[in-house]
Amino acid sequence: FVKTNKKEVAADVSVVSDTSMWDIHPPAMTYMLRGLVYIEATLHGPSHDLHSGMFGGSLVNPATALCAIIGQLHDKHRRVQIPHFYDDVKPLSAAERKMWRTLRFDEKEFLAEAGMKKPFGEKSHTTLERIWSRPTCEVNGIFGGYTGKGAKTVIGSSATAKISCRLVANQDPEKVYRNLVKFLKDRTPPDCRWEIHPHGINPPIRVCTESPWLEAAQRGLRQMFRKAPVLIGTGGSIPLVGSIQRILGFDSLLVGFGLDDDRVHSPNEKFDLKCYELGIKSHAAMLAEFAGVKA
Amino acid sequence: FVKTNKKEVAADVSVVSDTSMWDIHPPAMTYMLRGLVYIEATLHGPSHDLHSGMFGGSLVNPATALCAIIGQLHDKHRRVQIPHFYDDVKPLSAAERKMWRTLRFDEKEFLAEAGMKKPFGEKSHTTLERIWSRPTCEVNGIFGGYTGKGAKTVIGSSATAKISCRLVANQDPEKVYRNLVKFLKDRTPPDCRWEIHPHGINPPIRVCTESPWLEAAQRGLRQMFRKAPVLIGTGGSIPLVGSIQRILGFDSLLVGFGLDDDRVHSPNEKFDLKCYELGIKSHAAMLAEFAGVKA
Repeated sequence: FVKTNKKEVAADVSVVSDTSMWDIHPPAMTYMLRGLVYIEATLHGPSHDLHSGMFGGSLVNPATALCAIIGQLHDKHRRVQIPHFYDDVKPLSAAERKMWRTLRFDEKEFLAEAGMKKPFGEKSHTTLERIWSRPTCEVNGIFGGYTGKGAKTVIGSSATAKISCRLVANQDPEKVYRNLVKFLKDRTPPDCRWEIHPHGINPPIRVCTESPWLEAAQRGLRQMFRKAPVLIGTGGSIPLVGSIQRILGFDSLLVGFGLDDDRVHSPNEKFDLKCYELGIKSHAAMLAEFAGVKA
Repeated sequence: FVKTNKKEVAADVSVVSDTSMWDIHPPAMTYMLRGLVYIEATLHGPSHDLHSGMFGGSLVNPATALCAIIGQLHDKHRRVQIPHFYDDVKPLSAAERKMWRTLRFDEKEFLAEAGMKKPFGEKSHTTLERIWSRPTCEVNGIFGGYTGKGAKTVIGSSATAKISCRLVANQDPEKVYRNLVKFLKDRTPPDCRWEIHPHGINPPIRVCTESPWLEAAQRGLRQMFRKAPVLIGTGGSIPLVGSIQRILGFDSLLVGFGLDDDRVHSPNEKFDLKCYELGIKSHAAMLAEFAGVKA
């Protein structure tokens, strides 16, 4: 759409409201997004589902084999084992680490929102650093063999995993994609073959924090909330922001009004009416400030 | 049913036709069945599905964690790692090994039936030994997270595996069940809990090969096929045979007429009309011989 409608969507800057606030006060602007490499990988083995008694123990079971391969994606320190995965990761600067500390991230509350108590992940980083500034590799879905009610004694002919990596600056999504595929193929069990489909290969994004547009948006938000907006990261990805930057050549300001308890991507997702109202008023205030920018 | 209908189903012997022939000539009698322990294990983590960007890398993903645990079920020699799994396994006798060799098992043809070329499994045993006389642990089904078409960037709140072990003489199914559950629980990730349901806990079976009933059945089959029946094993399980032995106190003769290419438990399962006819005639011949048995 962006490619075929370049003229119609030409602009000085875009404002994207697909991010969250840093609590309801103060307002927040997001200046970095993680990238995303998402694949669906099916491991094919036997030509058809087999009786697990008549064949069990004598040939490769794709479900068991797929699990064993996924089990190798992380080491015991929770580091991702895809080759060269961390090679291009830009370390967090001392200034950013300091800025993030001033946000007073409440790890306990963050985990409680997910019904959890214990932080988990790369031991060398804090929870906030892990979400905003470290790449991940997660299984988003898995299925194979018999998945209905009760028992069926089969060895399924295939097993599938939906696997995604969140990427951070300066990782190259194409490179991560190739290395993830290589990681799987290097472990192909005997007599098996992979069928791999990409579901998205998108780079991490950093918004320039010193543009006149960003400063104008900050002024608008400050007027609205009577408080200066904080600059935050997010663990999420918005592929469109990359397309706008690459194809149209201008930046996006990430000014969203979500809250941590919105249950994003989950059943019963919500968006507060209060946030809706704040969003409307903030956009009006930002537009007024944009009018005065000499780009 | 067997327990509440003891009188109605009282008999000298039972004949079960849920096994296969050893090729169409010669006929076969099966003298051993593997036992079965089948569980459904769900690993519960977060209270609801989570956005994999907003939470990815900061807490336990049950799908990834379940895979990592299943990946530990076998070592690189394909030996099952459940504690004490092999403790009670009765080694194959020299006589049995010799008898099995005379069957001239065609490993290549067996694997080709499943669309496979390379034998796989415990390196210290032949394929036929692995199916008939070695216990297994297989994933019969697995599911977790998003399993529909395309991509959804979630961390699922739980992941489930249907896991079954085929057992051989003299393994105790209750003991294997307890140790399998212990294996999983010993590896419970932080903040997670297991929900485990058994779907069957059945012992391995050996039919006495020197009974007058078995000899009578052999005579009947010999008349029908003009060839002596061979004694074979099977990798499958027939829990009812255990119930008959335990509750009613008599043996079962396992005389089935299936063929290797029946695609048992798979789509397009078939049963040859020729085998159906052979089965009818063989049962008539066996009944005639049973009439003369002085039990």
